Amino acid sequence: MCVSGTLVEKLHACAAAGFDGVEIFAPDLVAARESPEEIRALAARLGLRLDLYQPLRDVEGVDEAEFARVLRRAEATFALTERLGIDTVLCCSNVATATIDDDETSAAQLRALGDLAAARGIRIAFEALAWGRFVDDYRRAWRIVELADHPAVGVCLDSFHILSRGHDPAAIRTIPGERIFFVQLADAPRLSLDVLSWSRHHRLFPGEGAFDLVGFMGHILHAGYVGPWSLEVFNDTFRQTDVARTAAHAHRSLRWLEDAVARSDAALGGLRMLPDSAAPSGVDFVEIRAEDTSDVEELLAQAGFTSRGRHRTKPVTLWTAGRARVVLNEQHARDLVPHLAAIGFEVDDADAVSRRVDDRRCIRLFRRTYAAEEPLGAVVAPDGMGVLWSQAADAGEPGWVAEFEHGGAHVATGVVGVDHVSMTQPWHVIDESVLFYAAAFGLRPTSVTDVPGPQGLVHSRVLASPDGRVRLPLNVAPPIVAERGGEAAHAQHIAFLCADVRELARAARRRGMEILPIPDNYYDDLAARFDLDRALLAELHDLGLVYDRDGDGEYLHLYTRTVGQVFLEFVERRGGYDGFGAGNAPVRLTSQRADGATAGRVRS
Amino acid sequence: MCVSGTLVEKLHACAAAGFDGVEIFAPDLVAARESPEEIRALAARLGLRLDLYQPLRDVEGVDEAEFARVLRRAEATFALTERLGIDTVLCCSNVATATIDDDETSAAQLRALGDLAAARGIRIAFEALAWGRFVDDYRRAWRIVELADHPAVGVCLDSFHILSRGHDPAAIRTIPGERIFFVQLADAPRLSLDVLSWSRHHRLFPGEGAFDLVGFMGHILHAGYVGPWSLEVFNDTFRQTDVARTAAHAHRSLRWLEDAVARSDAALGGLRMLPDSAAPSGVDFVEIRAEDTSDVEELLAQAGFTSRGRHRTKPVTLWTAGRARVVLNEQHARDLVPHLAAIGFEVDDADAVSRRVDDRRCIRLFRRTYAAEEPLGAVVAPDGMGVLWSQAADAGEPGWVAEFEHGGAHVATGVVGVDHVSMTQPWHVIDESVLFYAAAFGLRPTSVTDVPGPQGLVHSRVLASPDGRVRLPLNVAPPIVAERGGEAAHAQHIAFLCADVRELARAARRRGMEILPIPDNYYDDLAARFDLDRALLAELHDLGLVYDRDGDGEYLHLYTRTVGQVFLEFVERRGGYDGFGAGNAPVRLTSQRADGATAGRVRS
Repeated sequence: MCVSGTLVEKLHACAAAGFDGVEIFAPDLVAARESPEEIRALAARLGLRLDLYQPLRDVEGVDEAEFARVLRRAEATFALTERLGIDTVLCCSNVATATIDDDETSAAQLRALGDLAAARGIRIAFEALAWGRFVDDYRRAWRIVELADHPAVGVCLDSFHILSRGHDPAAIRTIPGERIFFVQLADAPRLSLDVLSWSRHHRLFPGEGAFDLVGFMGHILHAGYVGPWSLEVFNDTFRQTDVARTAAHAHRSLRWLEDAVARSDAALGGLRMLPDSAAPSGVDFVEIRAEDTSDVEELLAQAGFTSRGRHRTKPVTLWTAGRARVVLNEQHARDLVPHLAAIGFEVDDADAVSRRVDDRRCIRLFRRTYAAEEPLGAVVAPDGMGVLWSQAADAGEPGWVAEFEHGGAHVATGVVGVDHVSMTQPWHVIDESVLFYAAAFGLRPTSVTDVPGPQGLVHSRVLASPDGRVRLPLNVAPPIVAERGGEAAHAQHIAFLCADVRELARAARRRGMEILPIPDNYYDDLAARFDLDRALLAELHDLGLVYDRDGDGEYLHLYTRTVGQVFLEFVERRGGYDGFGAGNAPVRLTSQRADGATAGRVRS
Repeated sequence: MCVSGTLVEKLHACAAAGFDGVEIFAPDLVAARESPEEIRALAARLGLRLDLYQPLRDVEGVDEAEFARVLRRAEATFALTERLGIDTVLCCSNVATATIDDDETSAAQLRALGDLAAARGIRIAFEALAWGRFVDDYRRAWRIVELADHPAVGVCLDSFHILSRGHDPAAIRTIPGERIFFVQLADAPRLSLDVLSWSRHHRLFPGEGAFDLVGFMGHILHAGYVGPWSLEVFNDTFRQTDVARTAAHAHRSLRWLEDAVARSDAALGGLRMLPDSAAPSGVDFVEIRAEDTSDVEELLAQAGFTSRGRHRTKPVTLWTAGRARVVLNEQHARDLVPHLAAIGFEVDDADAVSRRVDDRRCIRLFRRTYAAEEPLGAVVAPDGMGVLWSQAADAGEPGWVAEFEHGGAHVATGVVGVDHVSMTQPWHVIDESVLFYAAAFGLRPTSVTDVPGPQGLVHSRVLASPDGRVRLPLNVAPPIVAERGGEAAHAQHIAFLCADVRELARAARRRGMEILPIPDNYYDDLAARFDLDRALLAELHDLGLVYDRDGDGEYLHLYTRTVGQVFLEFVERRGGYDGFGAGNAPVRLTSQRADGATAGRVRS
């Protein structure tokens, strides 16, 4: 149920994504035109093991009359499982028909089911659902299995059912590994929703949510479990997305998890682990692409960037200021308006990153490179953007800068470097993007915000390197905005850190920069909210700067007008300010919308 | 915050929708380019009162140093409110800075604020937020206001904050009406989400959710409140939808509520109430429209419907079976595939329905009608479908049937009538549709289901008349499916009730009907789930019928192949079966998808 499509489509996608095996979920088989024998044969041809059939529901804690019906259902399920060639059936704890809250009774009933299953060479894995009527804790499920004392009866451990309830997973280590028949993994965001809805709609792949799956798998491996790591991710989005792509995404989450588990505890053997490479130490460059990048060049020149010239073999130019490098690419860009096409990271070990992206099956991006040019590693992010990496230079500028000719020399300016790069993601891609940057580049999700704009809420998640030198706020446009396309659906921006943003604003204005107009009411509100120095307030108002405060930290920033899909932001951080001025985003969104409506007239 | 857009767009939309006044929400004003004086003048020109400014947050239960800051903020807010010409400011209970859990302290602070406000002719309405730190219950908010004992300090009552916490609204009657300064209304679905997220994302307009707003308003009116009924609906969808349309939808919800409140208690005076008209007593007809409706005619003929001929002035034909009437319309339908274009209801008082739809500002639909023809009332539903109504005939067929010529005579068949009509709605239209059918036709939302299909979950809500004779399951296609368009995004079906669906299936098969193929695995599963008679199971399998059971009730049904966007269903209800076979929908969805992939080939 992690992916969309028919059972046959799912099997093909899982095999292509690199999975060794799959579970068969009953509703998929019931709806399939193919017989169980055809499914078995197809899986065999694709090299996929069929590891488990599920679920057999509401089997224990029932009275005798009901148990007779359970045995009839179980017999049919085991017969079907045998036709599929599967040796393990998942039984989840009773939610509907249980009337007897007694471990001995449940154990006796599991024992009887174990006899029935064993006659066909099948075993049953008993799982405590978080919302089970009497059994909702894996420790109780294990006690019942222990009491049942039948070789064909073991437990299934599902991270969601255990971690969503806040149950301590450490007791897993007390279960003999061979009695853990199966392990199901799901991550999830922290939600205070009822556990059933949370489970059915909002599970995520490992690495995308808030659960400690590394610790969870550590306990399971310490218990001696050697079986499959299976994903059971009910999620409204993944049910709709392309099956092949979601299967690859799912597989990437398991490779990330295996590596992280191996790294977490040297005592755990038998896991595939790659040589470590740290997260990027900085942003090497950002690349904006368009048929005509002149409007961006104008903005950069107004902000005091230096034109470093044209690439010696491509219609590409470079602009720099401090450690910030902006590449403008007009290659094969017919009809394209300015948009963020790529980001480059500085890394400590470029080869290690290359091995990591391949291990995580990221899609390599071809970039035309001549022999005398520096080859950079490159992959495609889920939203289609290029992500490149290269060895951080020991000092000064990276080697590839020398490929640009006829430009000015590097000069010091008030711009320090890239502060953050913000990208709008389609709503059905955001989770995949989070995992992509985590699994391939070691970035970690930090904060989550919802920003109200005039056309809906913009959901925002920030990915950052541990030292905070690379920060990528990923925004999700409201679905109707996204459906209509247009600027707001794709809005991206690059924020540059400045030593003194007021100085930069004054200089930029002298050079004619059009700063996004901010309404007067905003400054009245600022005066009411903060006890600001009057002269500073007047200057902010005059320059079109916006302001935020967080504890002792302060954030002064300005937005340029939008060019194509991109705008630039210039920011100054004072004290320990660590945010992105989210409180100012509603005003920005409204002003951008109003500005978009008049921009054609103003600029024509 | 009920609607999208800038403040100016919102004011225009609210005026056009018929509102008398609006609240001004601070973030809207802060982001507006217009000065407070311009907003005030625009509202005056549009005939909109500015009834309230909100919010002033975190004012009470604070220490002295913090209260000094509160007074500074309040002074700025009151000054702004005065510029807007507004006389009431909403203060919500403290969530962030309260440290003193003492009613006397809070009362003293509200009293001081009351003095400050009164100096400008302003009053403050204190509201208990459901997640207030110390004050989270309207009864406590009222106690504090009573203690404050200041003519400029009263309470604001918000249905969400009261009903979401399960607080008994009856105590509202003990508050003197003149001390209730403001009333905010929101409905909401029952969710077990934390109350803050529930409030911020999932509120609904009155009539769309699960709250008893009729009872709530009854208490408020009995208390003697005579002020505005305001809507405060935070909803992720309405923030995105067209502002004019959502404002009209919002206004419709208040008209529905006013009428329902008036009807609930004859002692409540001063409310606008219409003469009552019952919900429809039945489905008069369904209309399918297409450039060429032959494929539908073929299905109807195979199912035993009688062709009643062609309309005497339009390219429209009529088919009937029992009380089921299907109109096929080829008028102005170039390039359109068969789709459900309209539904007709039989009503007890057609004039009363006409007055009701006009009162609720539904959009009238023009239908070409000649003098000698029966004029039917017609409006456009939110999804674009036509909804018509006419006086139920005392006996026999309605008068408009006589307008069809050259057809056969009415004959008895195994079809009894229309069982239900199912329509797929865009996800951002479903709430509006629910209110439309409730406010205009007296249908009520009954059950809610999520059906897993191969391309995502299909969310389904059923609207029904109180006696169940009209039933409309409304489905919401998964957003990606909807975005791509195509059949699944628009799937509609008409289900006909049969006395004996096996008999109908046998006859239809003899006449060559293609029934949707159901996989063999389904019947194996049926045998495992239910203790079905073997002969019956074999017959179901042979005929392609599906089966459901609910207590003692049984449901046997079959689906035709899809023609354009429409398929037909034939159902037999046994015992008290009251559902729609939702358990069979996943198999249907998967089979339809597989069938769609091969249908072109099969039918060409």
